[in-house]
Amino acid sequence: MKKLIINGIIVTASDTYQGDICIENGVITAIGKSLSPEGAEVIDASGRYVFPGAIDPHTHLDMPFGGTVTKDDFETGTIAAAFGGTTTIIDFCLTNKGEPLQTAINTWHAKAKEKAVIDYGFHLMIGEITDEVLQELPKVIQEGITSFKVFMAYKNVFQADDGTLYRTLLEAKKLGALVMVHAENGDVIEYLTKQALAEGNTDPIYHALTRPPEIEGEATGRACQLTGLANSQLYVVHVSCREAVQKITEARNAGFDVWGETCPQYLVLDQSYLEKPNFEGAKYVWSPPLREKHHQEALWTALKNGQLQTLGSDQCSFDFYGQKDLGKDDFTKIPNGGPTIEDRVSILFSEGVKKGRISLNQFVDITSTKIAKLFGLFPRKGTIAVGSDADLVIFDPYVERVISARTHHMAVDYSTFEGMCVTGEPVSVLSRGEFIVRDKQFVGKPGQGQYVKRAQYGSALASKENVTVL
Amino acid sequence: MKKLIINGIIVTASDTYQGDICIENGVITAIGKSLSPEGAEVIDASGRYVFPGAIDPHTHLDMPFGGTVTKDDFETGTIAAAFGGTTTIIDFCLTNKGEPLQTAINTWHAKAKEKAVIDYGFHLMIGEITDEVLQELPKVIQEGITSFKVFMAYKNVFQADDGTLYRTLLEAKKLGALVMVHAENGDVIEYLTKQALAEGNTDPIYHALTRPPEIEGEATGRACQLTGLANSQLYVVHVSCREAVQKITEARNAGFDVWGETCPQYLVLDQSYLEKPNFEGAKYVWSPPLREKHHQEALWTALKNGQLQTLGSDQCSFDFYGQKDLGKDDFTKIPNGGPTIEDRVSILFSEGVKKGRISLNQFVDITSTKIAKLFGLFPRKGTIAVGSDADLVIFDPYVERVISARTHHMAVDYSTFEGMCVTGEPVSVLSRGEFIVRDKQFVGKPGQGQYVKRAQYGSALASKENVTVL
Amino acid sequence: MKKLIINGIIVTASDTYQGDICIENGVITAIGKSLSPEGAEVIDASGRYVFPGAIDPHTHLDMPFGGTVTKDDFETGTIAAAFGGTTTIIDFCLTNKGEPLQTAINTWHAKAKEKAVIDYGFHLMIGEITDEVLQELPKVIQEGITSFKVFMAYKNVFQADDGTLYRTLLEAKKLGALVMVHAENGDVIEYLTKQALAEGNTDPIYHALTRPPEIEGEATGRACQLTGLANSQLYVVHVSCREAVQKITEARNAGFDVWGETCPQYLVLDQSYLEKPNFEGAKYVWSPPLREKHHQEALWTALKNGQLQTLGSDQCSFDFYGQKDLGKDDFTKIPNGGPTIEDRVSILFSEGVKKGRISLNQFVDITSTKIAKLFGLFPRKGTIAVGSDADLVIFDPYVERVISARTHHMAVDYSTFEGMCVTGEPVSVLSRGEFIVRDKQFVGKPGQGQYVKRAQYGSALASKENVTVL
Amino acid sequence: MKKLIINGIIVTASDTYQGDICIENGVITAIGKSLSPEGAEVIDASGRYVFPGAIDPHTHLDMPFGGTVTKDDFETGTIAAAFGGTTTIIDFCLTNKGEPLQTAINTWHAKAKEKAVIDYGFHLMIGEITDEVLQELPKVIQEGITSFKVFMAYKNVFQADDGTLYRTLLEAKKLGALVMVHAENGDVIEYLTKQALAEGNTDPIYHALTRPPEIEGEATGRACQLTGLANSQLYVVHVSCREAVQKITEARNAGFDVWGETCPQYLVLDQSYLEKPNFEGAKYVWSPPLREKHHQEALWTALKNGQLQTLGSDQCSFDFYGQKDLGKDDFTKIPNGGPTIEDRVSILFSEGVKKGRISLNQFVDITSTKIAKLFGLFPRKGTIAVGSDADLVIFDPYVERVISARTHHMAVDYSTFEGMCVTGEPVSVLSRGEFIVRDKQFVGKPGQGQYVKRAQYGSALASKENVTVL
Repeated sequence: MKKLIINGIIVTASDTYQGDICIENGVITAIGKSLSPEGAEVIDASGRYVFPGAIDPHTHLDMPFGGTVTKDDFETGTIAAAFGGTTTIIDFCLTNKGEPLQTAINTWHAKAKEKAVIDYGFHLMIGEITDEVLQELPKVIQEGITSFKVFMAYKNVFQADDGTLYRTLLEAKKLGALVMVHAENGDVIEYLTKQALAEGNTDPIYHALTRPPEIEGEATGRACQLTGLANSQLYVVHVSCREAVQKITEARNAGFDVWGETCPQYLVLDQSYLEKPNFEGAKYVWSPPLREKHHQEALWTALKNGQLQTLGSDQCSFDFYGQKDLGKDDFTKIPNGGPTIEDRVSILFSEGVKKGRISLNQFVDITSTKIAKLFGLFPRKGTIAVGSDADLVIFDPYVERVISARTHHMAVDYSTFEGMCVTGEPVSVLSRGEFIVRDKQFVGKPGQGQYVKRAQYGSALASKENVTVL
Repeated sequence: MKKLIINGIIVTASDTYQGDICIENGVITAIGKSLSPEGAEVIDASGRYVFPGAIDPHTHLDMPFGGTVTKDDFETGTIAAAFGGTTTIIDFCLTNKGEPLQTAINTWHAKAKEKAVIDYGFHLMIGEITDEVLQELPKVIQEGITSFKVFMAYKNVFQADDGTLYRTLLEAKKLGALVMVHAENGDVIEYLTKQALAEGNTDPIYHALTRPPEIEGEATGRACQLTGLANSQLYVVHVSCREAVQKITEARNAGFDVWGETCPQYLVLDQSYLEKPNFEGAKYVWSPPLREKHHQEALWTALKNGQLQTLGSDQCSFDFYGQKDLGKDDFTKIPNGGPTIEDRVSILFSEGVKKGRISLNQFVDITSTKIAKLFGLFPRKGTIAVGSDADLVIFDPYVERVISARTHHMAVDYSTFEGMCVTGEPVSVLSRGEFIVRDKQFVGKPGQGQYVKRAQYGSALASKENVTVL
Repeated sequence: MKKLIINGIIVTASDTYQGDICIENGVITAIGKSLSPEGAEVIDASGRYVFPGAIDPHTHLDMPFGGTVTKDDFETGTIAAAFGGTTTIIDFCLTNKGEPLQTAINTWHAKAKEKAVIDYGFHLMIGEITDEVLQELPKVIQEGITSFKVFMAYKNVFQADDGTLYRTLLEAKKLGALVMVHAENGDVIEYLTKQALAEGNTDPIYHALTRPPEIEGEATGRACQLTGLANSQLYVVHVSCREAVQKITEARNAGFDVWGETCPQYLVLDQSYLEKPNFEGAKYVWSPPLREKHHQEALWTALKNGQLQTLGSDQCSFDFYGQKDLGKDDFTKIPNGGPTIEDRVSILFSEGVKKGRISLNQFVDITSTKIAKLFGLFPRKGTIAVGSDADLVIFDPYVERVISARTHHMAVDYSTFEGMCVTGEPVSVLSRGEFIVRDKQFVGKPGQGQYVKRAQYGSALASKENVTVL
Repeated sequence: MKKLIINGIIVTASDTYQGDICIENGVITAIGKSLSPEGAEVIDASGRYVFPGAIDPHTHLDMPFGGTVTKDDFETGTIAAAFGGTTTIIDFCLTNKGEPLQTAINTWHAKAKEKAVIDYGFHLMIGEITDEVLQELPKVIQEGITSFKVFMAYKNVFQADDGTLYRTLLEAKKLGALVMVHAENGDVIEYLTKQALAEGNTDPIYHALTRPPEIEGEATGRACQLTGLANSQLYVVHVSCREAVQKITEARNAGFDVWGETCPQYLVLDQSYLEKPNFEGAKYVWSPPLREKHHQEALWTALKNGQLQTLGSDQCSFDFYGQKDLGKDDFTKIPNGGPTIEDRVSILFSEGVKKGRISLNQFVDITSTKIAKLFGLFPRKGTIAVGSDADLVIFDPYVERVISARTHHMAVDYSTFEGMCVTGEPVSVLSRGEFIVRDKQFVGKPGQGQYVKRAQYGSALASKENVTVL
């Protein structure tokens, strides 16, 4: 069936104009003035923006962590994502040392398949490089998993050593994958953490104090330098501080192929939240942690100037009661992360675009287009263009509302941004031409989301692939 | 009359996709698959790219300089531009101290009006800030001239002192204009130049040796620092060297609103050209001068990373015989500049996109979209979107050809890039829906180009204007 | 006659040890344990430091400025200097455009000759480079004036343009002189100043607000870059801010021969002093101005790390009543400068050494040795070594005292550091073996100070001269 | 017995002057003109420099490595050192995990006691931080070992992880010790090394190619950042490249207490030496390796500007025949290091002072004074001052000679600097007033050297200790 979205202000990473969008078989077939395809359902978007569906490159749904499992799974998580204007996610598939990669991938497919309401892909965690891993990797790429995640922190759990990181960079280069790093110095954190506990410092604030920005800066710089040496490509996830931005900037200026992501929590919250009374600080435990306020300005400038290019949610939700409180007497036992998948887009619009820090086109680039290009989803996803999937968000830029756990769609019992006023809200959201959210009501169904095979790194960045389109 | 360009690969600053473009009354009215508007002339662009018409932000047509006048006027200059894929130029309107700004503007309108074959706007040179100038500036803005040029070089001719630059930055901030600087330290150049002549060093190479990159870097840094202090906006024209790139980068990283342009000659030619025998070096005299080869890499990296954002031609052509040779015995008498308006776009495509240094979308951004956004032309110009002017280039990305004065369309007796092989060429070029060049034949007519009033600085960058589109 | 100073802790730029110093004919002839030269007067320095006499590289005595003349002349100025532990000064000889340099030099000799109680040399201001100036310079060097001062500020008064600065750097290189710059952007200051007055902002604080640190940083960077280009040598006087320190550091790291001086007022006072009520802010008017407090830390770190190498007083004293009040209704009419010659050394000792910011040896280097080496006074001045002039300071490191105009020896009616508590004080001061101050009493006489011809730049820095000592 | 060294040019870190030095009981008792102590043996140093005995902060004598033992022990090593003008060494005491530190220290005392001809101290390697180690450290300090060495390379041998480095920094801060690091990324080296061997690349040059400068820069930056975080003190040994210099410079400019050492081999040799035929490249195998030639300039500039402060030899000698050739078929089996203890001082004099790169006083500071101050030997060692040990070098600055294994005094069968012409040579060397070398003849005896307890870090740097001298 055909659909026609009329009179909206269409916004892409470079353009802003009024027009109608014609959709057939889930794909955009025309954009124009006064289109009138026969038999099309007409949706009026007057007075609203039409954005390409946002892509969340950083989610952890249905993920085991520290003896518990994230509250949101692929059903509640993707429903919330959709309400927030996100139409594709890329979730992290965790692997176990000594186990075939395929086993982990199968597990992740099983988690998503019957639950996801929007499209999804996977990143693959690399914890070690063995002969078996090397043998499996080409197949992983073929299956459309073209990004590998390496942890420089979480000692004795996820942490890989620098040799493994370096080899992953070399392999990624060869295979056409993008290497993602969690950049914090896990060795130093391990000591600081033990030391804090030994001194009886068990409150949530010590989570932040034992992971200072200097060691995020250090690890980021280290990863960048290894990338330059390997002549490979790197994507630094969840950049939280000035020090890390500076390292990424230096690397890029040196011509290294390095990219950086930040998250909404780092843009609008700060370290003082961890000191909230009644253990409420536990809600604000991320790794890397929230930083002192002055770092926020560095992050905004970096988004504006292109030193950072994307925004991920790092969605990783745990209930305050029953999960976060595992760490009541020991901050190291607080499950890391929070519910952010639903508010990522709105916060960037409200705090970024509305406050004049970034342009409307940058907003689209940061939440959708650049992510699609970096992770091999473009041009199928990430834009509003003829031939692209009709993943669309009809957005009211004027409505003012208050974020709250009472109204959000995540399964978790609190909101990261409780009480925050934002301007703007997705009204309707389409995935491949089908409404998932219509007039703020969920109209999709679990299992409707599809797995997306992603192309190799560079397909949408270099010119050659584009030329061969011809 | 309607036109339909079918089957081309449409490229914008963010997108690349196959589609048809429908044009009515000079404006794009629809983009889609298999469009079939009644009565439209159909142009087949199969196997070709369709780019938004390029914009040249830096031309000097019909400009008096050093007792002579540039060879190309608004007729030959804009015809050549069109052949090169450029559909809008912004030319520099030179002012004289003590004379009303309006007089200069009127002169420039007179030069262009009956000659231009493509659309045009003007930048205005600011040589001094007097009460009269201050009084005239608001009207200048109203007339659509929203960029001011200040020279830090050409002592006793164009050069303004730092106080004038600073005031211009302050006024521009207030009025919504972008300040452009020619950044070289004119005081030091004056001494070095005199000294060279005094020592009998009169050959063209001394033009380069008396304007070393350090003094471009110095002046660029100075302009950036004054911009930061004034909290204003700056566009550094014709960046030629590593030192200047670094200063712009530092300024941007500090959050200053600073932008940088380079030119094709700096990307592909080097200082050794000034040493060509038989006075041929004179053909390669620009200010700033061509640099040693290693600077080219810095410029390419800067374009890739967004440290530099645009490419201008700095078109300023003089015949070798009869004009350049005025400096036969004294390099300071060689008219500065060269013919570049026609080859700017093709060189960036061939050396940039084809060689994998920048992406196809960056190519469009650098030659068209970003320029439109910075100089108040967007979204009327600078993109392929519904509602935008149908300024379009149908481009063959495969053809290989050799640049030569024998085949170029500029009025000047030599080519800057003589003998250079490039891949890719504009086949047909439309301005507001009308062919100017069709199948490599000129089909336009002088006077067809229109003056374009430009919007204030920031209209397409900040969010507020976009929001009010609604 | 012989003197023997016994039991003091002798401190040089590298050493600290207990010993006796034997003096004959004004020169140190031996240093040892238990020396007992026949017929020597014995001075007991037990429990005290013996420092090499400090050298003040930056004084303005008996100097006309803005229609008035500095309060301290070579008599009161050098007496105060001696009380402060300074045994040599280098004063700035101001020149007038169009007038022979020798005229200015003669004038300065006349000011000093019968008044100075300690030794002195001159720097020479360069306001223009004409053929006459070029002809005179070699003789100037021969007469022992081996440093040239160029002003980048004070537009239409002292300010030289960049061409003049660059030529001075080239001439200095050739002749073996050190170029000193006052680094502020005079053009911008001129505008900011006029603007402030036009807006009715006439209070002393506007002196600081119209000379922001950014323009000191800018001018410092500019001077450094021209020095690198000229492959010459530069000494930046009175560095007041973080921005300027950074530029000097960058230049030094690039291998440029650049040095930096700060002044005690910038180390311990800040911009808020200019806001003192009852026009008292006028006492704190320097150019560059006092800065916000955070700059102090940058200056201290720079002294510690050797990014800045020396401390000058920039002594330039005017009475509050009768001189500073010329600017009551217009801050631009406040004579710039203050009385600092007497307290420079004590402040660095108390705030630097006692507070652990610099070592004792660095203290001697910064106030004496490095200055002697840079300005061609070494090894005659600047150290305690056999063969050097017996310019010595016997210093009590324990006494605590309060700086005040009531007790100082300058002729001016207020103290820059009124009420400041310092630890440490010169007890006795010898110049060429003669007491000038003995047990805190003045025992010298005007005219006793001698003019010191200084050696060319580099004599004490490079190796060759030292080798030829043999 | 007394000695009097007359007429030499005495050089310290700050002074250069002619004088006589009187020595009693091994200590300098007077310096003067025409001293004539009764009964003193007179040594004429006319036409010669008298330097403070050089201190070598970085030696490996009698050290087991890779299944063999360094050729030079404390006898041949210290004799050679003395011939080269070195009168004190600080050797690295290696520890074994799980073994008491005291065991290692006792072993090192046993190696040195009856063999050393000059004074010596020890650094202590820290391979792990256990409760036992923590308990022993205070005693180690009390015994005069006030510097700890941590290896960031040599995976599975010496390498400590970042947590250990960080804790060592914290402990050192508490105890008053200086932390020394070997800064290379051992994890990455391990991979690169295995990979090279796997590819059949076994020649010596692969030693350099598998340890690129980027990973020295990376590790250096990492160590600096951890030092800043710990607010501790760091000394980076054997800096070989531009990248590492830059990281140290950044750290110092940020106010971190970081110091850097280079070695003569990095100043004058380059990576091409590893490609010498007939396996001769093996002679030039150090870690970090020799670098491409352009790094030398960075090191010289760094010494001149004080970005690097000291020169160590990293003496670690193995015979070419019988030891180096263990690695004939596998570069990883080549024992690392070379014979450099004897030529360190002469090379810096000849290449540094004579070629005008550093001053004579800097030369003394770099080879002696600064080392004494950093490692708690000052003022007993490191200068020529009353009260200091009479560790003196009488140096002929004019003689030209060729370095060769045929004439050197090390026990090893080749010379690192074979065939290199240098100007200048130690003629006579005294340790605590006794000749060790006299007129180029060895006149000392094994066991004459004494262990020197070193003071805590900072004693000679901060002011407080100096003040308490009183």
